[in-house]
Amino acid sequence: MCRLMLYLGPETRLSSLIVDPKHSLIRQSVHSEEREEPLNGDGFGVGWYANDHSLEPAVFRSITPAWNNRNLQNLARVVASDCVLAHVRAATQSSGVNEANCHPFRWRQYLCMHNGDVGDFRLVRRQLLASVCDEAFGNVYGSTDSEHFFALFIDSLLTNRERDPALRMAQALARAISRTLELVRNVGQGGDSYLNIAISDGEHAVVSRFTDADDGVPESLYYFSGQLYRDVGAKAKRKGTQPVIVSSERLTADAGWAEVPANQIIILRRDRAPQFVDARTAEPR
Amino acid sequence: MCRLMLYLGPETRLSSLIVDPKHSLIRQSVHSEEREEPLNGDGFGVGWYANDHSLEPAVFRSITPAWNNRNLQNLARVVASDCVLAHVRAATQSSGVNEANCHPFRWRQYLCMHNGDVGDFRLVRRQLLASVCDEAFGNVYGSTDSEHFFALFIDSLLTNRERDPALRMAQALARAISRTLELVRNVGQGGDSYLNIAISDGEHAVVSRFTDADDGVPESLYYFSGQLYRDVGAKAKRKGTQPVIVSSERLTADAGWAEVPANQIIILRRDRAPQFVDARTAEPR
Amino acid sequence: MCRLMLYLGPETRLSSLIVDPKHSLIRQSVHSEEREEPLNGDGFGVGWYANDHSLEPAVFRSITPAWNNRNLQNLARVVASDCVLAHVRAATQSSGVNEANCHPFRWRQYLCMHNGDVGDFRLVRRQLLASVCDEAFGNVYGSTDSEHFFALFIDSLLTNRERDPALRMAQALARAISRTLELVRNVGQGGDSYLNIAISDGEHAVVSRFTDADDGVPESLYYFSGQLYRDVGAKAKRKGTQPVIVSSERLTADAGWAEVPANQIIILRRDRAPQFVDARTAEPR
Amino acid sequence: MCRLMLYLGPETRLSSLIVDPKHSLIRQSVHSEEREEPLNGDGFGVGWYANDHSLEPAVFRSITPAWNNRNLQNLARVVASDCVLAHVRAATQSSGVNEANCHPFRWRQYLCMHNGDVGDFRLVRRQLLASVCDEAFGNVYGSTDSEHFFALFIDSLLTNRERDPALRMAQALARAISRTLELVRNVGQGGDSYLNIAISDGEHAVVSRFTDADDGVPESLYYFSGQLYRDVGAKAKRKGTQPVIVSSERLTADAGWAEVPANQIIILRRDRAPQFVDARTAEPR
Repeated sequence: MCRLMLYLGPETRLSSLIVDPKHSLIRQSVHSEEREEPLNGDGFGVGWYANDHSLEPAVFRSITPAWNNRNLQNLARVVASDCVLAHVRAATQSSGVNEANCHPFRWRQYLCMHNGDVGDFRLVRRQLLASVCDEAFGNVYGSTDSEHFFALFIDSLLTNRERDPALRMAQALARAISRTLELVRNVGQGGDSYLNIAISDGEHAVVSRFTDADDGVPESLYYFSGQLYRDVGAKAKRKGTQPVIVSSERLTADAGWAEVPANQIIILRRDRAPQFVDARTAEPR
Repeated sequence: MCRLMLYLGPETRLSSLIVDPKHSLIRQSVHSEEREEPLNGDGFGVGWYANDHSLEPAVFRSITPAWNNRNLQNLARVVASDCVLAHVRAATQSSGVNEANCHPFRWRQYLCMHNGDVGDFRLVRRQLLASVCDEAFGNVYGSTDSEHFFALFIDSLLTNRERDPALRMAQALARAISRTLELVRNVGQGGDSYLNIAISDGEHAVVSRFTDADDGVPESLYYFSGQLYRDVGAKAKRKGTQPVIVSSERLTADAGWAEVPANQIIILRRDRAPQFVDARTAEPR
Repeated sequence: MCRLMLYLGPETRLSSLIVDPKHSLIRQSVHSEEREEPLNGDGFGVGWYANDHSLEPAVFRSITPAWNNRNLQNLARVVASDCVLAHVRAATQSSGVNEANCHPFRWRQYLCMHNGDVGDFRLVRRQLLASVCDEAFGNVYGSTDSEHFFALFIDSLLTNRERDPALRMAQALARAISRTLELVRNVGQGGDSYLNIAISDGEHAVVSRFTDADDGVPESLYYFSGQLYRDVGAKAKRKGTQPVIVSSERLTADAGWAEVPANQIIILRRDRAPQFVDARTAEPR
Repeated sequence: MCRLMLYLGPETRLSSLIVDPKHSLIRQSVHSEEREEPLNGDGFGVGWYANDHSLEPAVFRSITPAWNNRNLQNLARVVASDCVLAHVRAATQSSGVNEANCHPFRWRQYLCMHNGDVGDFRLVRRQLLASVCDEAFGNVYGSTDSEHFFALFIDSLLTNRERDPALRMAQALARAISRTLELVRNVGQGGDSYLNIAISDGEHAVVSRFTDADDGVPESLYYFSGQLYRDVGAKAKRKGTQPVIVSSERLTADAGWAEVPANQIIILRRDRAPQFVDARTAEPR
């Protein structure tokens, strides 16, 4: 289990997102509040896009904890971006702590991060890999369930013909979730999956909040639309550049935070209000 | 503030000390119980002596947390020693997380580690450095109060003529504590010092539990003499090789753990019961 | 391409093998002489066995270069073992520098390291993984051709019924080499493989020197049997404990170094002279 | 000895400076050509300024080599700046490889890096520290001669009343060089100093090329003014934003590279041609 945060909006300093908020992601690396175990100290990663989006995004990952990493603090203070993904990790037993296992993972212009588990992953891994195309297979460098899930997403995206890019991402995400559940059903032992997945291409983003556990309670996930505090949104005066943050935990005490509904995908576009679709079908709820 | 553990006894695997106990130091790196903040995740270090004591001790230090370090787990499983020091760090603001700041620190055959603070260290640092001999000065590579305190110890040891090596170490430790308090008094602003300091030469060890805070309550420190559980002490059947562990927190629920009295130094020798002396004078209490 | 060294003999300090020799492995990390590019600075690893062989071997790996790693120097000075494997890495493009990609790799009591390349590995990887049993598959954590080759070895070992453990290892190694060539032939594009592979269980070791390149020249590999210099072999006075070192480059100027013949496997046993078998068939040459 | 590079000009991607050039700094980390030993693999650092200069500069440092660091490649591809400092390190014996010892060093808005040695540093260190003000003293976190030299610069700057900021920096640098030579003369044993020092505040920069060695040959240092290749300088059409690069080795085969004269300081201002002054007096040559 981990904590994640995604931002899409006008350009802002990374520090305004991951350092300054009272309950920032760096704070959550030590004191997360909505997990049984508050610690997310097994590395971190942050990904962001150059402001002209002419380039593949940058990813900065480290196996040291986020709370004491000076490089991260330096970067966050100076670097600004209009699309940021950040993740603090609590490693599970089965996969080691090394940079290849830190989120976000990258493929072309896409970044992906995960909070949760693929059920019975050790049993599912082989069939999962066998089921994806070479391009998706070749993008797997480590041993996390999360990176393997991303391979399912890549495979699903490559065969999807939807022309709206955000909807295409949502459909591929829903398809990857369905395929995961099917794999667990076929070769696993009934383990529950928790799939809070955030994916962006720099212009759009999709984030799922999903579980198939019997109690129907996925990992926590919130979103905030509007001006969080002075810094984020300061330049957001032009119509259509309303910032949106999606985060495992509320970054501030602001009343504007809302839960992402269980088993939904939230779709973010720069020029629109967030949209919600079903996490397995990508149909409007 | 940090957590530390020192072992002197018959040869034992490192894992029997720092991994296996229910409340082992690795456990304390995540869930220490006698600090306000349970986390000691800013690096760790372990030092140990070759069994023939023909060589300077080994030190293995890392800026990643102890709980997820595979090298540490590997080492601990295979390496055995009759004198082991281990430390998990919670960095204070003023000094960064890098290997030079991880404990234990080494000088010749001596290893030193610290749990606590030198009062007003930022103000005291210059005078402290100015007060020690070149040999002690030249051994300072980082920016922690702990390594600077060790320079005071080295300086005090080099001018001490006591012939009993354990008592000489205790006297030098007491002298370094007194000199620290004097420096804080002279150039500081009345800040409290917490000086739980463990030092060994491989054959003997001295560990102080000290504070000059008004409430008189130092950081926690315990010791255990005898057979902790099967593994530690298994070979301790010869007279005079009774193992002793000194630790910030009790490693097990065994009733045999006792507190080191406040403002005392515990002296360990291979062939004797632990001895206690005053932490400022090294006089028997 | 990388450099590797394996030792089997009486207990010796690691430093006598990887630090002290004039052309030690640490020296080779900066200045190897039998590669076009002298640098092997993309991490290192050392594996060794506890002297009672009661435990799985230790592995210490790091992504920093061997030449400046203080932990390695500390360890090497103090730790002694009767079976040591060490490796310095020059990463190829296709796989990143992280600990999971550092050699030696471990499975049960076995350690494996590699100097060379699997031909067309990017094309071969999927079929290779598909061809091995779950146990071998589950041991792959990174993205190197070397670790994938080890999976072939594990799979070959598990189905081999030979009762002599050294010969069984040699046969499994030869089988893994043959299977690699077959995979490259079937799904690759005619790329050459260079397979200098060293594997040990702590009591025996097998090391191949192999290529199927047209010029028939594998990567360099040498062995030395006897007393290398005072330290190594000092305790080797008992019959049958003659030390043997196998190394990518000669560690000293001693005339006793001999080349491992091309396309052979050298088999080491504690109580015998080295034996050579064919690298593809494990038949005596 | 190390390699360094400083850029002052219109905003450009970091990669255009430290990755793309044929003989880039990353290339120099493996294959520097103007040092006896071509390797600079003991860590690296890069510092840069936010484009509105409203903030302290960012510094990204690592103990792993520059050539294989994915975070560096990612950062360099996406981050752009109008003032960049980069450094690859070849550690000397006396100081360890840890982040506190990686260049550039920072104090307020200033960044500093060094290629060379302070003569007899081990002997000089104490007197040097004793000679600077508390502010300069308190900025020393590691054990390199370079960071200690920076303390001399800080101390010299704080007592300098020159109102032109670039000239003030040049005078403080010349003063720090003179003070270093005096310290070596007084408490050293006649060791030579090599002081190629680059310092910037984001708007101006001063770089010395200096030695007091008998042969009078300092470490190599070059500068280039104008459009290096398409990427650097693309936006430099406005008058007064001519880019300048100062580098230990020529980054390209372009004929426009010129040597910085021995024992001079080159002064860079955004709106002027480079200016040269004497490295000990800061007087125009």
